[in-house]
Amino acid sequence: MDSLLSMEEEESSPWSPALSFCFWVGFAFLVIKSCICKRKKPHQEAKPNMASSTIREVEKILSYRFKNKALLEEALTHPSYYNNNNNNGESSRSYQRLEFVGDTVLGLALSEYLYLEYPSLDPGQLSPLHHANISNEKLARVAVRHHLYSYIRHNIRDFRSKV
Amino acid sequence: MDSLLSMEEEESSPWSPALSFCFWVGFAFLVIKSCICKRKKPHQEAKPNMASSTIREVEKILSYRFKNKALLEEALTHPSYYNNNNNNGESSRSYQRLEFVGDTVLGLALSEYLYLEYPSLDPGQLSPLHHANISNEKLARVAVRHHLYSYIRHNIRDFRSKV
Repeated sequence: MDSLLSMEEEESSPWSPALSFCFWVGFAFLVIKSCICKRKKPHQEAKPNMASSTIREVEKILSYRFKNKALLEEALTHPSYYNNNNNNGESSRSYQRLEFVGDTVLGLALSEYLYLEYPSLDPGQLSPLHHANISNEKLARVAVRHHLYSYIRHNIRDFRSKV
Repeated sequence: MDSLLSMEEEESSPWSPALSFCFWVGFAFLVIKSCICKRKKPHQEAKPNMASSTIREVEKILSYRFKNKALLEEALTHPSYYNNNNNNGESSRSYQRLEFVGDTVLGLALSEYLYLEYPSLDPGQLSPLHHANISNEKLARVAVRHHLYSYIRHNIRDFRSKV
């Protein structure tokens, strides 16, 4: 989310294989976090306020059906969404706490991939690859390319023009 | 490993609950990486050179039996071990590549723990807790407290006096 909001324009160059991989890793974080949160369910009583059709569309993009739809809604909600009294009866949960876990899920998925795929590289060579592929800009491009940005709930002026 | 080697002296103050948790998280990385490496087994042909009794002692400390003992040996080997022709017929694998994955395993385990245990904290409060509990110094204290440092294979002058 932060990645997307810090992005200014889309590049026309084709994606590298590593970047394509990064998409699946990047959004796998939602899936993995959904699994994590089965152990303790802080939001198990919450029901999503998003339209069911919207949730299904995002699940189709991610190729994953969430057991706890409220987590998906939370992941798609920017803090600005609650400005101007938008939260009629909703809790004020935004993606920010999930992002705290998601960043580390993404880090592990990518380091595991690099460790196994490049057995001859030493850590000094692996680290730059790791950093380059979880940069904010690359993750933002992933969100734009797969149209995930259009499902974000927010109250940001000129959001689409920034994308 | 780097944590341990950068440590100069042990503190006498009792450990905090968070730090105690950190031990189990910290060394869980060896276990989790062992699981990861079952999918592709870059070292499946390797046989450990460490004495079986040493391996069993470390497994007892960790409360975990490794299927692939060579991974445990690798995790306990500092690059300096191969100085002075110590590697008679051994590959020159040290802990450094495993550490590349282990750091992210540790990051995920701790962020998941903090996310679930402190549902009322925002990311601005969670991040300092996260950083404080995966500091090199704290991890080194864990290795010393549980005597894991004595199983490290190395060629470092005055290693014990530094610990």
